[in-house]
Amino acid sequence: MGLVTPLRLRIEQPLLLSSGGVLASYELVYETYGTLNSDHSNAVLVCHALSGSHHVAGYHSAEDTKPGWWEQHIGPGKSIDTRRFFVVACNNIGSCYGSTGPASVNPVTGRPYGPDFPMVTVRDWVETQARLADALGITQWAAVVGGSLGGMQALRWAIDYPTRLRHAIIIAAAPKLTAQNIAFNEVARQAILTDPDFHGGRFYDHGTEPRRGLRIARMLGHITYLSEDIMRQKFGRDIRGGKLNFDYQVAFEVESYLRHQADTFVGRFDANTYLLMTKALDYFDPAGETEGDLSRALARVQAASLVLSFTSDWRFPPARSREIVKALHDNDLDVSYAEIKAPHGHDAFLMRIPRYVDIFSAYMERVAAA
Amino acid sequence: MGLVTPLRLRIEQPLLLSSGGVLASYELVYETYGTLNSDHSNAVLVCHALSGSHHVAGYHSAEDTKPGWWEQHIGPGKSIDTRRFFVVACNNIGSCYGSTGPASVNPVTGRPYGPDFPMVTVRDWVETQARLADALGITQWAAVVGGSLGGMQALRWAIDYPTRLRHAIIIAAAPKLTAQNIAFNEVARQAILTDPDFHGGRFYDHGTEPRRGLRIARMLGHITYLSEDIMRQKFGRDIRGGKLNFDYQVAFEVESYLRHQADTFVGRFDANTYLLMTKALDYFDPAGETEGDLSRALARVQAASLVLSFTSDWRFPPARSREIVKALHDNDLDVSYAEIKAPHGHDAFLMRIPRYVDIFSAYMERVAAA
Repeated sequence: MGLVTPLRLRIEQPLLLSSGGVLASYELVYETYGTLNSDHSNAVLVCHALSGSHHVAGYHSAEDTKPGWWEQHIGPGKSIDTRRFFVVACNNIGSCYGSTGPASVNPVTGRPYGPDFPMVTVRDWVETQARLADALGITQWAAVVGGSLGGMQALRWAIDYPTRLRHAIIIAAAPKLTAQNIAFNEVARQAILTDPDFHGGRFYDHGTEPRRGLRIARMLGHITYLSEDIMRQKFGRDIRGGKLNFDYQVAFEVESYLRHQADTFVGRFDANTYLLMTKALDYFDPAGETEGDLSRALARVQAASLVLSFTSDWRFPPARSREIVKALHDNDLDVSYAEIKAPHGHDAFLMRIPRYVDIFSAYMERVAAA
Repeated sequence: MGLVTPLRLRIEQPLLLSSGGVLASYELVYETYGTLNSDHSNAVLVCHALSGSHHVAGYHSAEDTKPGWWEQHIGPGKSIDTRRFFVVACNNIGSCYGSTGPASVNPVTGRPYGPDFPMVTVRDWVETQARLADALGITQWAAVVGGSLGGMQALRWAIDYPTRLRHAIIIAAAPKLTAQNIAFNEVARQAILTDPDFHGGRFYDHGTEPRRGLRIARMLGHITYLSEDIMRQKFGRDIRGGKLNFDYQVAFEVESYLRHQADTFVGRFDANTYLLMTKALDYFDPAGETEGDLSRALARVQAASLVLSFTSDWRFPPARSREIVKALHDNDLDVSYAEIKAPHGHDAFLMRIPRYVDIFSAYMERVAAA
C-alpha cells in the first residue's frame, strides 16, 4: 500500500453510551486507502479487534519495519482491492492508538481519563463509526468487514443500521462469548487490576504502568490465539540450548515466544484499554436483547453476509460462526459461509491462506459488482 | 473413612536428584488407611497431583468440614476398598502440606529454603516413595495409582521399579506435556515470579507472600481443569444480580467462581510449591530419554495397567492416554483402557462418576485377586 497518513476527526456531538454515560466529545483517528468514487458507493469499513488499530495496511514512514495489521488482505489486487474500494479503518474509542481513550486528557480535569473513561460497547463503536461515515459523506458502506471483535462490529452494524451497509463480512467471530471466553478475559483483567502499579487505573499520574499485569494478560491471550497444533508445530517441546537448567529461566521455546510477545506488547499497549476491550467482548450479546433468540435479534438485518471461520480456531470455533449463519438464514437473508481449513487457530484471520484469500476476494468481487 | 492421623518419616539417606543436586535429608508426611496384610501384598500407593496432599480420605478432626481429596474413591466399599487394601498416600517433597519443601527450614541456614529448595521431578518423587515403601516393609505395591500428575508418578514407578508394583493405574494423565500445556504453566509461573511480593522466592523472610500471582495462577488452572461444556452448564452467561454494572466488579457468575477459587487457594498453598509442581509437569517426559520413543521408554515395565481418560478433558485428552496405552501394548503388556464419557473436564478424575467407579472398582477387584 505504500505510505499512509492517519487522519483525525473531532466530534463535538455527545455520544450516549450503552452504559448510560455520555462522552461529551471525542476524536477518531482513521486511515483511508484507495479513492471514494463519485456516488460514494465503494466504501468499505474495516473494524479492528482487541489490540488492533486504524493502521490496517501500508507504512507510516520509510523507516517503518512493519506494515498495518491486515496488509495481507488490503491493497491493490488483494482481498479488499484498493483499486476498487475506498477503505476506511478507524481506531475505536477506548483504544490507545490515537482515538479518545483512557490515556487521553479528560477536558474536565486536564489529566488522563484513566478509570474515568467510560466503558464502551460494540454498539457504541458502531455509533462512532456512523459519525465518521457521516463526516466522510458515506451514507451506505459497500461492506463492513472485521475479524474477531471486528466481526462483532460488522454484525452490530447490520443490526443497528440495516440500510447503511450492503454487505457484512464477519470473520472468526461469535454471536457472544462463552463462559470459558469470559473466564480467560477475567484472568487477564485480574492480572492488570491487582498489579500494584495499576493504582486504580491512575497509573499515568504515578509515572508508571502495570507492566506485569499486562504482560500476563498478553501471554494468556496468545495461548488462545494459537491452536494447540500450531504450537506443537512451531515449538513442540524444543528445549532452549538443548538441555534443562532446573531454574525459572526459559527452558522451552514456547516460553521464549510468550515472553517475547508479552514484552513487546507492554511497550505499545495501554492497560486500561486492555480492560475496556475485554469488557466490550464479554458484553457483546445481541441476542441478550431478544431473550436469547439470535434470529429475532437479526430480524431487522438487510445486508448480505459472508461469514468465515477457521477449523483450528478454539477461541471462536466454526460452530460459533454457524450460529450466526443459522440466525441469518432464519431471516431469509443472503448468507455465504465457509469454514477454512487452517492450522493456525484464531490468528488465521490475520493470515494469507490461499482458500481464505480466494473466498474473500471472490466475495469482494461480488460486493464491487453490486 | 472416619478420622485419620498423618504420620511422619524422617529419611537421613541423601536423595540424589534428577537435577544433579542432593537433598541431604528430608521428611515425608503420609497417611495410611486399612490394614497391611501378613505378607504385605495388599498395599496401594496413591500419588497426588499439583495441589493435592497425603490426605486422600477421611477427616483429621471432628471439626473438619471437608474430607480428603479422593474420598469419592477411597474407603470401605469404594473403588479402592480399604477393607481389602492398605492404602498409603504421601505428600511429595517440594509440596507444602508437611513433607520437606520450600517453606521448610533449611538446616544449613536455619531459615526457610525458599528458592534454595531444589527443583524436583516425578522421578525424584518416585525415589522418595520407594524409601517410604522400604520403611513400611512394602517390597511390592499391589498397585500404584494416580490422576493427572499422580498418574505420571504411577507410570514412572512402572518404569523405574518394574518389580516393585503389580499394577499401575494411570488416570487423566499424559506421557508428556504439549507446548500448550507448558504455555499455561509458564503464564502461571510468570504471574508468581513477577509479583513484587515474591522477593525472589524469599517472601517468608519478608513476612509476605505473592498472593496476587498465586491467585492468577489458580484462576488460570481452574479454566484448564473444567471443560467448556461444564462451564456453560454451571455458569453460562448468567449475570450477577441480573444486570450489567459497567465496572470491574463481578459481572458474570463464572468470574465469581474463579475469584472464589483463587482466594481460598491463596490461604492454603505455597507459591514456591506451585512453581516446583508446574516444572515437574513440564519436565516429565520418559520418552525424552529414549529419543522420543515412548515404547522404548516403557521396555522394562512389567506391571499390568489400567489407563483411564475422560472425554471432555482438554488438559490431558483421551488421545494422550492412548499414547500411553499404545506404548504399553507395543511391549506386549497387559493393559486395560477406558475412555469415560463425562462433561466435567480434567476434574472428572476427582469425581464419583458411575462408569468410572464401575471400571475402577472392577479393576481393583482384579488387583485384590492377584
